[in-house]
Amino acid sequence: LLSACSSSEATVSMSLSIEDAMNIRKKSNELPLLEKSINTMEAEVNALMAQEIDVPVPRDAGGGYTHERHKKNGAAIYQAATLYQVTGDEKYADFATDLLLKYAQLYPQLGPHPQHKHQAAGKLFWQILNDAVWLVYVIQGYDQLQAVLTEDQKSIIETNLLHPYVKYLSVDSSETFNKVHNHGTWAAAAVGMTGLVLGNQDYVDIALKGSDKSGNSGFLKQIDSLFSPDGYYTEGPYYQRYALMPFVVFARALDRVQPQWEIFKYRDGVLLKAIYACINLSYNNRFFPLNDAIKDKGLDTIELVHGVDIAYALTKDPGLLAIAENQNQVIVNGDGLLVAQGIAAKQKKDFIFKSILYRDGAAGDEGGVAVLRSNNAESALVVKAAGQGMGHGHFDRLGFLYYDHGTEVISDYGAARYLNVVTKRGGIYLPENKTWAKQSIAHNTLVVDERSHFNGKLAKASETSGQVTFFSGKLNALTASEKNAYPGVTFERTMGLIHTTLLDSPLLIDIMKINSSEKHQYDLPFYYNGQLTFISGKPEIAMNRMETLGEDNGYQHLWNKGQLSVDNSTTQLTWLNGNRFYSLNTLLPSDGEVIFAELGANDPEFNLRRENALVLRQADRSDAYFVSVIESHGEYNGVKEYTLQPTSNVASLSHQMEQDASLLFVNLVGGGRIVIAKADEVDASLQHTLSVSGKTYEWQGHLAVFEEATNESE
Amino acid sequence: LLSACSSSEATVSMSLSIEDAMNIRKKSNELPLLEKSINTMEAEVNALMAQEIDVPVPRDAGGGYTHERHKKNGAAIYQAATLYQVTGDEKYADFATDLLLKYAQLYPQLGPHPQHKHQAAGKLFWQILNDAVWLVYVIQGYDQLQAVLTEDQKSIIETNLLHPYVKYLSVDSSETFNKVHNHGTWAAAAVGMTGLVLGNQDYVDIALKGSDKSGNSGFLKQIDSLFSPDGYYTEGPYYQRYALMPFVVFARALDRVQPQWEIFKYRDGVLLKAIYACINLSYNNRFFPLNDAIKDKGLDTIELVHGVDIAYALTKDPGLLAIAENQNQVIVNGDGLLVAQGIAAKQKKDFIFKSILYRDGAAGDEGGVAVLRSNNAESALVVKAAGQGMGHGHFDRLGFLYYDHGTEVISDYGAARYLNVVTKRGGIYLPENKTWAKQSIAHNTLVVDERSHFNGKLAKASETSGQVTFFSGKLNALTASEKNAYPGVTFERTMGLIHTTLLDSPLLIDIMKINSSEKHQYDLPFYYNGQLTFISGKPEIAMNRMETLGEDNGYQHLWNKGQLSVDNSTTQLTWLNGNRFYSLNTLLPSDGEVIFAELGANDPEFNLRRENALVLRQADRSDAYFVSVIESHGEYNGVKEYTLQPTSNVASLSHQMEQDASLLFVNLVGGGRIVIAKADEVDASLQHTLSVSGKTYEWQGHLAVFEEATNESE
Ligand SMILES: [Zn+2]
Ligand SMILES: [Zn+2]
Repeated sequence: LLSACSSSEATVSMSLSIEDAMNIRKKSNELPLLEKSINTMEAEVNALMAQEIDVPVPRDAGGGYTHERHKKNGAAIYQAATLYQVTGDEKYADFATDLLLKYAQLYPQLGPHPQHKHQAAGKLFWQILNDAVWLVYVIQGYDQLQAVLTEDQKSIIETNLLHPYVKYLSVDSSETFNKVHNHGTWAAAAVGMTGLVLGNQDYVDIALKGSDKSGNSGFLKQIDSLFSPDGYYTEGPYYQRYALMPFVVFARALDRVQPQWEIFKYRDGVLLKAIYACINLSYNNRFFPLNDAIKDKGLDTIELVHGVDIAYALTKDPGLLAIAENQNQVIVNGDGLLVAQGIAAKQKKDFIFKSILYRDGAAGDEGGVAVLRSNNAESALVVKAAGQGMGHGHFDRLGFLYYDHGTEVISDYGAARYLNVVTKRGGIYLPENKTWAKQSIAHNTLVVDERSHFNGKLAKASETSGQVTFFSGKLNALTASEKNAYPGVTFERTMGLIHTTLLDSPLLIDIMKINSSEKHQYDLPFYYNGQLTFISGKPEIAMNRMETLGEDNGYQHLWNKGQLSVDNSTTQLTWLNGNRFYSLNTLLPSDGEVIFAELGANDPEFNLRRENALVLRQADRSDAYFVSVIESHGEYNGVKEYTLQPTSNVASLSHQMEQDASLLFVNLVGGGRIVIAKADEVDASLQHTLSVSGKTYEWQGHLAVFEEATNESE
Repeated sequence: LLSACSSSEATVSMSLSIEDAMNIRKKSNELPLLEKSINTMEAEVNALMAQEIDVPVPRDAGGGYTHERHKKNGAAIYQAATLYQVTGDEKYADFATDLLLKYAQLYPQLGPHPQHKHQAAGKLFWQILNDAVWLVYVIQGYDQLQAVLTEDQKSIIETNLLHPYVKYLSVDSSETFNKVHNHGTWAAAAVGMTGLVLGNQDYVDIALKGSDKSGNSGFLKQIDSLFSPDGYYTEGPYYQRYALMPFVVFARALDRVQPQWEIFKYRDGVLLKAIYACINLSYNNRFFPLNDAIKDKGLDTIELVHGVDIAYALTKDPGLLAIAENQNQVIVNGDGLLVAQGIAAKQKKDFIFKSILYRDGAAGDEGGVAVLRSNNAESALVVKAAGQGMGHGHFDRLGFLYYDHGTEVISDYGAARYLNVVTKRGGIYLPENKTWAKQSIAHNTLVVDERSHFNGKLAKASETSGQVTFFSGKLNALTASEKNAYPGVTFERTMGLIHTTLLDSPLLIDIMKINSSEKHQYDLPFYYNGQLTFISGKPEIAMNRMETLGEDNGYQHLWNKGQLSVDNSTTQLTWLNGNRFYSLNTLLPSDGEVIFAELGANDPEFNLRRENALVLRQADRSDAYFVSVIESHGEYNGVKEYTLQPTSNVASLSHQMEQDASLLFVNLVGGGRIVIAKADEVDASLQHTLSVSGKTYEWQGHLAVFEEATNESE
């Protein structure tokens, strides 16, 4: 009974205070989001309680029965304990206690898991990572059961389960424990949170500062190293979400029990920045699928539910309530209560997605990921000029993604993997993840001589990063450069999502400048989504026989559907994506071509999705430019039977290159033009002047945009 | 001013009574759906009023400026007049009057449209069909303006516009007017409605009974001929929606002014049946895309808004309110008022989608379209064994569609056309509509010797229809047969969506029986949506070079991605579609194969979508069977990272054929089996007995399903 536990007896709870539990119990029926979250939890626990308790001897690898069962049991200990606190129903306390005692019986008999392979072995699970995650849940459950457990029970659970478990994680597996790596963070969180509950300061200290308490490893060191000063996690948003969980859950527990660490102020508040970064690295609720990423994942994942609830509790930022409302779930604790109350009190405001540059690297000097949004956040342009992102990184320097009208327009493949689908090689990364998804040609970026950046070598790629040399939220543009991906070739890309008064929608600008003293073949793919509706010129199409575009480095997976030869004028390609038209307007030299490529060759297991690319190609070139703009226009309405503006407002492009600067003219159909003036120098203080056909353009700094209502020089 | 028009002066209004107008004016602010519909109308009319009035001399073909402008003006006359009635704002009456007078000025000067081609010429538009549609709108507007127009104005409009317009439609273009065809229906509606408003009984009579008033043509004859007794329109749901509009709008007008015709009771109430048929021939708000069909179209099209509002006014069926609520729009008249009131009063009930057979042909003896739904309407199976459906018909005898979990699982291509997209050949049907979309291989049905049914000849196909020899809503199954598509070959297909206690989801059963005295190649494609996740056996895949599956009849558009040779055991193919898995289990003889085909060859303009088929093939066979079941199972959840049941519950199939009957055994993974017993005879009174491995099956009638909890005979 909850009443058996007077608040004076209770130590400060790490995860759910008596007071919060009482408030949740009293108020949840007026707080729909909280009530729904409790109901979901109850349904899950009741389903498990309806079965016989099973704490099996560990046997199976990931996905197998004992693996899944231990995961479920661990979660259930936390959930049932929480439900006991917020409902007062003793059956939940009894169930959680039973499970804990069964684990206390089992654990002392266990050695390393029989299925362990390359990763360090756990005891309950094949990988020690899973063991650490398990304890993070279970210790929160134990925390909430303290008032109902007898001294005997406590003694059994602590002696036979918790202490040996901590020893296995921190001493026997000290290599993982002291790693400055996400696996180390989970171990630190498990051990540290156990220390907070058991009042064992030693556990807390080694969790924070490593086994030797030197601070060279442990949680604080991980905070120092694994995030950039802007809160960006180098593996990219998909893994950032995953990495975030132990950071914020342990930090929040620490903040409650030992607030003197001021952990959320640590390193200029980087943990909060990391939560915000996760939110900002998304479009329409889905994370930008940079590096190995499953595209389903987004802001509604459980990790972000934790992150958003914690961030709201700390900041009361009403924009977070909009995210929480979309998550349609809160954590059943004091933080979740606050969120549910905020939403019920209609304090929600729109979360403002802004243009922002996330620097990469612990010191913030390893390039970054730039996110440009249109004024109303309807469109987003993402450019990656960051570090490699470790083993899950893709060879995608200066690659970009483009979103508009709620959907992917120019996309990244993400990972070649069917998460947890056992018939797809057990759900692990597929061979095509390496042969296709990581390769440069799978990305919207430059590929030289049909080889991937750094020849596809991780070690080499990890030595350097892309660089963002210019970023302006005001102009909504950036310039990034890459000097190391190909020996002897440097490339620089200026991109923007430019608002003008001449067009209704922002115009995507893409100027790729390549320097090399030797001749190469340059390919620049655009993975577009939708159906081509217009091609300027007549392509030569593979009619009844198709071959691959190349032999290796991802090219072997692309069918060559045909190509369009280009005669030095503006090439225009329009496609329909949902109800919206998109036009790629591009300038290619007279020996250039547009290749129509389709993914799916050399795919004996049907592992690859069908995706389509327009590959811009220039062969046998040293210095070169790819100059393109993408316009979003018009509307297709099949229900009401009308179509607006199915053709681009862009009539042609021209590009004027001078010694230290260049001008891109975007000539519009109705007359008028947009001029993008770009200096080679990025210095913001320098003045530049360029005259073309009698008209003089003057600007300060790297980049400027001019609008001319009528095409004055023509 | 509305008050200038006392109700005693007014004749009965055809479209909107004074009383309804006053009620709408008083109540619309409490009726959100009605208010929204009025606001939409106002926004459209105000946008047009903000421009200068333009009634241009007709010049352009469909899609061009004058075409679109006349369409807009016609709709605006109706909308502005309606807005005047329901808001009392005189500016709307003035605007509609101005437009009418301008048309009265223009019309006498016009000859046949300069752009007219194969179709009969209109005057305002290139096709007379468009002229008829225009008048249907405009006469409703004129009807509502009568009280404000001066006698002079009326005289000008009637003398210079309405009477000559009717003469052009009914006398000068009498061939179209007297056609028993959709174009004739629009003409009849235009002329008849004009007669109702002008009090010209001659116009009403020729509209109802043809120019000679014999009844051999005209509206009544069209009702007799164009619908089956069940309300099915032979061109299929997409065109049924389109055809419906003049029928129901004219009928409703007639019903108001001359109720003595009892038009909605005519022919056993077939017009109401036709509205219900339209609704029933849909899944998740979209029409079944049989024949030439744009897949965007569904229950929210304006034609169905008219249909549903009228049907509700006549029947008060609360299920229709659910459809109306999804439409999110009502017609601004008395019927729409009733619908909006019903919804506001929360009288809505779920619309119950049931298993139903729609017979085709005026006499109901030309086969039909069978729709089978699962108990909760979550799945639907559609089998077409109907007439050819005229020029828009596809060569798809005994083809099927399968929907589940809200989406297409086994689909029909629909039409090869980008409606109104001018860069796709002006938005008309593309060449691939004939070379691909109509061909038999584009459908989930039998193709013999790589030729389409009836060799793709419309005239031949129109002589006969498929036949539905058995239909049971209780068993949720049917048998259909086709004897004419291929000389010397008959085929019969038994399909069902079978509920059992052994599986959570209904099982799709497909038994195709082919009889021929000569040897042929038989292909049976399944156009599946999604990503293959399991193939029993090892297919031979086209790795770096791909060729077409054939030369002609649609085969030239399919890439041959590879094939799986079959060894007389059950072949299993599983794919993931959204969050759900689907398994095709099929029995093929030892020389059979499964071909993996992908659409897109010989497509120089990128007109075709990428679609994938599993083509079951048996070569060099005379009599043959294709026996398959499709199971819907499991769940993929990428957000929460779990996957349930990604493999089929079906372990194997076996098929026992005897003299007059056959047994299909569906053996389940957990033991247990489902047995489908099928007699060759369809007679419901006949008793059948079959013994297999010591077990005896007895049943009455054509088809029976047995469940065996454990696989007793093994
Ligand atoms: Zn990638
Ligand atoms: Zn079709």
